[in-house]
Amino acid sequence: MTAESIPKATAKRLPIYYRYLNILHDTGKERISSTELADAVQVDSATIRRDFSYFGALGKRGYGYDVDSLLSFFKQILNQEHLTNVGLVGVGNLGHALLNFNFHKDGNVRISAAFDSKDDIVNTIQDGVPVYPVSDLADQLQEQQIQVIILTVPSDYAQGVADQAVAGGVRGILNFTPIRISVPDQVLVQNVDLTNELQTLIYFIENFSK
Amino acid sequence: MTAESIPKATAKRLPIYYRYLNILHDTGKERISSTELADAVQVDSATIRRDFSYFGALGKRGYGYDVDSLLSFFKQILNQEHLTNVGLVGVGNLGHALLNFNFHKDGNVRISAAFDSKDDIVNTIQDGVPVYPVSDLADQLQEQQIQVIILTVPSDYAQGVADQAVAGGVRGILNFTPIRISVPDQVLVQNVDLTNELQTLIYFIENFSK
Repeated sequence: MTAESIPKATAKRLPIYYRYLNILHDTGKERISSTELADAVQVDSATIRRDFSYFGALGKRGYGYDVDSLLSFFKQILNQEHLTNVGLVGVGNLGHALLNFNFHKDGNVRISAAFDSKDDIVNTIQDGVPVYPVSDLADQLQEQQIQVIILTVPSDYAQGVADQAVAGGVRGILNFTPIRISVPDQVLVQNVDLTNELQTLIYFIENFSK
Repeated sequence: MTAESIPKATAKRLPIYYRYLNILHDTGKERISSTELADAVQVDSATIRRDFSYFGALGKRGYGYDVDSLLSFFKQILNQEHLTNVGLVGVGNLGHALLNFNFHKDGNVRISAAFDSKDDIVNTIQDGVPVYPVSDLADQLQEQQIQVIILTVPSDYAQGVADQAVAGGVRGILNFTPIRISVPDQVLVQNVDLTNELQTLIYFIENFSK
């Protein structure tokens, strides 16, 4: 089964299933019926069963789907077959860590261009990646045909940089700032809010009887 | 409204609502009915309405709840009132970035102890945080009454370190490794899989018509 043989409409729903299954997994749920999943992701259950049949994932009557198996399966499918180059804006501590993070090993993704406004690192190579001035962001994204950026700038710059990236034709932003940025409808934003992740965990623990 | 005045059973469901609302927000959904939410998070709708009434969040008949308002509200509630100290295991690039990450500013969370096995940084102060040997993990967690750790070790060490943390009485693990670690039921694991986040975004873009 390759990504190419999955209908586009199905492919479009895949990340939604995937993210919801991750939540189920984290809350300890081991299986789910297509009806429950349908309610959760707001796709009708017949469509879900058809989508899943493309992957050869067949739910058992009276049991449903095994959450772990579906997750492993999706993880495999989401691992695209060709290398995708992405940009990173904001080479601070987190930016540096992500430049060093081995996305390539498991994910077939490579950060091929970085952007910053600090004079001492602009036009240098950091962790193997060239650093361009943020003022060149739109031009370089077009020039290098980069469609996805990782946003690790200070909060105050998040929206401004997002606007420049949109001007450069960006289609996806992995947003590590706590700001909910505004972008046109055709641009996707995936938020990774580390403070929230940690707070949610702590809150759950403190309000969860031992 | 303070966290103390929310019944424990309600508090326990809060992070589940919160995470699901984040997904809805990211997929552009602006409102949701208690019935839809009930199906999604598998809590009955009467309970959801009662839970939300503790927060003064009242859904409108025929409209439901506004996703953004609920999210801002939950964000506020999840911001605990006292400072929580957490540990971090694995002071590599990502670990360093998180030591520098300003969890405290928005989240009232502070990394107060770090752990690593590299001789050159054990027993030093890194980014203002003392680094203890991993072999002392269980003892130090007990000694310092740290209940939550951030796990940024290489994958191969993830399960071993988790086991030591469990022995030290850890109750929550924010797991940045791609490994799905096994822990006893009473320990909560929240997974932050950066490769998956990026892959999901890219996959969605590549299979999503412009």
